[in-house]
Amino acid sequence: MSDGLKLGDAVLLYSPDRKTYLISLTEGGKLGTHAGEIRHADVVGKRYGEIVRSSTGRPFVVLEPTLEDRMMKVRRLTQIIYPKDAGLILVKTGVRSGMHVIECGVGSGAATLALATAVAPTGKVYAYDREPRFLEIARENVERAGLAHLVEFKVRDAAEGFDEEDVDVVLLDLPSPWEGVPAARRALRGGGRLASISPTFNQVERMVATLQAEGFVMIETVEILLRHLLVRPGKTRPFERMVGHTGFLTFARRALQPIESPLEEAPEIETP
Amino acid sequence: MSDGLKLGDAVLLYSPDRKTYLISLTEGGKLGTHAGEIRHADVVGKRYGEIVRSSTGRPFVVLEPTLEDRMMKVRRLTQIIYPKDAGLILVKTGVRSGMHVIECGVGSGAATLALATAVAPTGKVYAYDREPRFLEIARENVERAGLAHLVEFKVRDAAEGFDEEDVDVVLLDLPSPWEGVPAARRALRGGGRLASISPTFNQVERMVATLQAEGFVMIETVEILLRHLLVRPGKTRPFERMVGHTGFLTFARRALQPIESPLEEAPEIETP
Amino acid sequence: MSDGLKLGDAVLLYSPDRKTYLISLTEGGKLGTHAGEIRHADVVGKRYGEIVRSSTGRPFVVLEPTLEDRMMKVRRLTQIIYPKDAGLILVKTGVRSGMHVIECGVGSGAATLALATAVAPTGKVYAYDREPRFLEIARENVERAGLAHLVEFKVRDAAEGFDEEDVDVVLLDLPSPWEGVPAARRALRGGGRLASISPTFNQVERMVATLQAEGFVMIETVEILLRHLLVRPGKTRPFERMVGHTGFLTFARRALQPIESPLEEAPEIETP
Amino acid sequence: MSDGLKLGDAVLLYSPDRKTYLISLTEGGKLGTHAGEIRHADVVGKRYGEIVRSSTGRPFVVLEPTLEDRMMKVRRLTQIIYPKDAGLILVKTGVRSGMHVIECGVGSGAATLALATAVAPTGKVYAYDREPRFLEIARENVERAGLAHLVEFKVRDAAEGFDEEDVDVVLLDLPSPWEGVPAARRALRGGGRLASISPTFNQVERMVATLQAEGFVMIETVEILLRHLLVRPGKTRPFERMVGHTGFLTFARRALQPIESPLEEAPEIETP
Repeated sequence: MSDGLKLGDAVLLYSPDRKTYLISLTEGGKLGTHAGEIRHADVVGKRYGEIVRSSTGRPFVVLEPTLEDRMMKVRRLTQIIYPKDAGLILVKTGVRSGMHVIECGVGSGAATLALATAVAPTGKVYAYDREPRFLEIARENVERAGLAHLVEFKVRDAAEGFDEEDVDVVLLDLPSPWEGVPAARRALRGGGRLASISPTFNQVERMVATLQAEGFVMIETVEILLRHLLVRPGKTRPFERMVGHTGFLTFARRALQPIESPLEEAPEIETP
Repeated sequence: MSDGLKLGDAVLLYSPDRKTYLISLTEGGKLGTHAGEIRHADVVGKRYGEIVRSSTGRPFVVLEPTLEDRMMKVRRLTQIIYPKDAGLILVKTGVRSGMHVIECGVGSGAATLALATAVAPTGKVYAYDREPRFLEIARENVERAGLAHLVEFKVRDAAEGFDEEDVDVVLLDLPSPWEGVPAARRALRGGGRLASISPTFNQVERMVATLQAEGFVMIETVEILLRHLLVRPGKTRPFERMVGHTGFLTFARRALQPIESPLEEAPEIETP
Repeated sequence: MSDGLKLGDAVLLYSPDRKTYLISLTEGGKLGTHAGEIRHADVVGKRYGEIVRSSTGRPFVVLEPTLEDRMMKVRRLTQIIYPKDAGLILVKTGVRSGMHVIECGVGSGAATLALATAVAPTGKVYAYDREPRFLEIARENVERAGLAHLVEFKVRDAAEGFDEEDVDVVLLDLPSPWEGVPAARRALRGGGRLASISPTFNQVERMVATLQAEGFVMIETVEILLRHLLVRPGKTRPFERMVGHTGFLTFARRALQPIESPLEEAPEIETP
Repeated sequence: MSDGLKLGDAVLLYSPDRKTYLISLTEGGKLGTHAGEIRHADVVGKRYGEIVRSSTGRPFVVLEPTLEDRMMKVRRLTQIIYPKDAGLILVKTGVRSGMHVIECGVGSGAATLALATAVAPTGKVYAYDREPRFLEIARENVERAGLAHLVEFKVRDAAEGFDEEDVDVVLLDLPSPWEGVPAARRALRGGGRLASISPTFNQVERMVATLQAEGFVMIETVEILLRHLLVRPGKTRPFERMVGHTGFLTFARRALQPIESPLEEAPEIETP
């Protein structure tokens, strides 16, 4: 980074009024903002952390895009999996460098960015969607983030099954996620993890029943609420508005043998 | 994994009543559980996903420990950073393979596991704590997770500064996190991210003021609430108890130049 | 109150370590506490707000029981409707002095106390339960609170219908609240309000469908989360534990004529 | 109500698309809505629960305004106390028929409506605000709700003290609520309850310290989150947006004698 940014590099431009812009530096490129125009040429040669000025003299900080920036700035045709949910998916499934992961219901590819980042530099994400135009957008978003070598895209419906075997993790983001469970079971190695996200209680209920029927274990469903704080000296408080719901997250693990037991019922244990 | 588990491997044993045990397989090892004794020798040779039986005939599923399992099962002398918070830290700071990260206030090392997993296989976590006996526990926990080669432990108070320069991310988990901000600023490269976790709003208020004074930008503070669902056919509902608070998370980025502007005030934008 | 408390009066004894005891003063009565014994005779003659001492010299403040104290201290055979939920029921149904209210599924009578307090001094609560031993407990709890003249108890199943007509409000706390909807519709005057509480989303879904089919309007379902703050100088934060769920509350109003319209679907309007 | 609505009566008009209008019926009155005009004359003679049609033939249900309707429809110059918070205030302070209550910081009078409804028919609300134009709006709102006989308005700053003694409850909604505590203490009878609402943590912290210093007991601070459910057959979920914060509610009770004890510290007891 010491030699400064060059054409092709990705930059998040941050204005002190909290607006941000994600760009890739191009020859002759210009960015129109709410506070004047920024010439890409003025950013070239800067280091992350330095300031560039718009045509109206307004300062913007040149920043390196984070995973969250990438996810929130994807071109969208669909609802995305949000960073708060993606973070929990990463920790609970334990996706890590070198793993092989299937994602089915790729949508705009926001979660794909999270998974690809986690399996880098040697793992692989197999990204399925039955809708070619979603996959096309997802592919663009993944390419723009420089993660294309880590992802293989496939047009396919979950019900038709996956090509891979012995994968470590499967993520399902489908309207009928239970339709993907048999294929997920076959693709997962023993002890492999499945994660699923769905907006409604009804989907969760059917999904959990299917997971139990297919012999998955350690099934749990959670939701995450994220609240922002407005921090000001002497007058700090939560924000007045918040997002009240994105989706319920269901997690489970692949067992190789049936476990004779009554319907697995979650005890109400409090965990953070 | 096809050749089966061997001595030294880590295993999460899962009982259908939701109790779990994390062990490393040892010669002649025995695990006492609530449902009888399990001989390590009976686990050796199994594959993840298979079942082992206790002395009383009760089945346990042999599972691969995930990051969450590791974090929740650390030997603890301190409060830990919980998976829900660690997940958001990973996504918001964008820690990824190959990065260099400082963690100060390591405590029992739960977050160290998350950071080390994220920077693998080639990055590094510099783990500081002024309390030698915490570092000792953290080191044990990191070793048990097989991540020791990714972490360098140092007994040091945040106020004394860090040895590293141009690191990508700094995580502070300190009673007085503002005392670590100058050292964090010096250690971070331009555009590098800082994350801090604190239980009280007073800490957050002082921390944010210090971050502003030290020229950090894109400062935001959030909290995460995680709620479990009890999913049963025809009678699904949220759990009756939940964890109401772990900590507030503050995020910021390192600017290299001062940005002339009034005190940066967060607009109340809703984001998930 | 100026002449001091006398036999038969109700008192909440409050110890500085936050323990509370609700008693009615009796001749020769004694209360065993965690901090010694308190003789009722020592409380007689005191005014609310004064201090009485236990046998071990520990101070207790003599307080007047509030509605919340009464509700939380009912003798219980069942889950109760909690104060946070009862408060919203009062405001949303608009129960007030002089109104006639049906409660069906009285349980231990906690909500009965709230309703009776709200309709006093001239209204009436008709309290139905099909379980005689619940009604017996509820009656005791209502009597102890001095509200017996405002409540009429009836052993009856919701499906059998109610005796009253033109009531202002109906509250249903039933395992199958939809079974009480036809009877509620017949008992309510035009524009009268129905409230229902249920723990599961499945109950809510069926209840709302039934309310729509029976011609109720302005149907809405909410849940309330209450979080405590630990307020201490310089170290204030939310409590670490909280109650994550009690029940979902559904509200609706009685229309007298059918309203030709597609299935009424709630827009996602944010209201506090 | 059996003879039908007449001039002067209050009506909530409800459209199936969830829009509502609160009016008082006047001679020749007309209401412009999003779905055509409604002539007040067409509502006169109807009973609550019946349907009236707009000029474009769209149906509106004629409903009786509830306390919540009144509160949400006040003419506003200020932030209001919302129904969810008012409900908890009623239950926790135990305001009931016949009580005398002081409200200081009346604003637009939304909470005044809740308090006046609760003390009816024989109690009294003493409503203070130092801003004459707020009191004027509040008075209008109270009159429109038919509650004027229960409320006495006074232009006064909290620091100057209240005229009343031996009141049962004091509600403070002030930017510096601690300035009202000495006056509240003097006005409250022994065992009387104080409630206060404030948006920031800082206000809460100072308020609680002042309450402790002034000898109040049983101090607690809570916040309420209300989440709406979108209930639809087979696809029920929480709303995507919610109100994340209105205010923190602090409750306390007036002791008449000092209680020798260390600073009263709330244990972290979970209560719903």
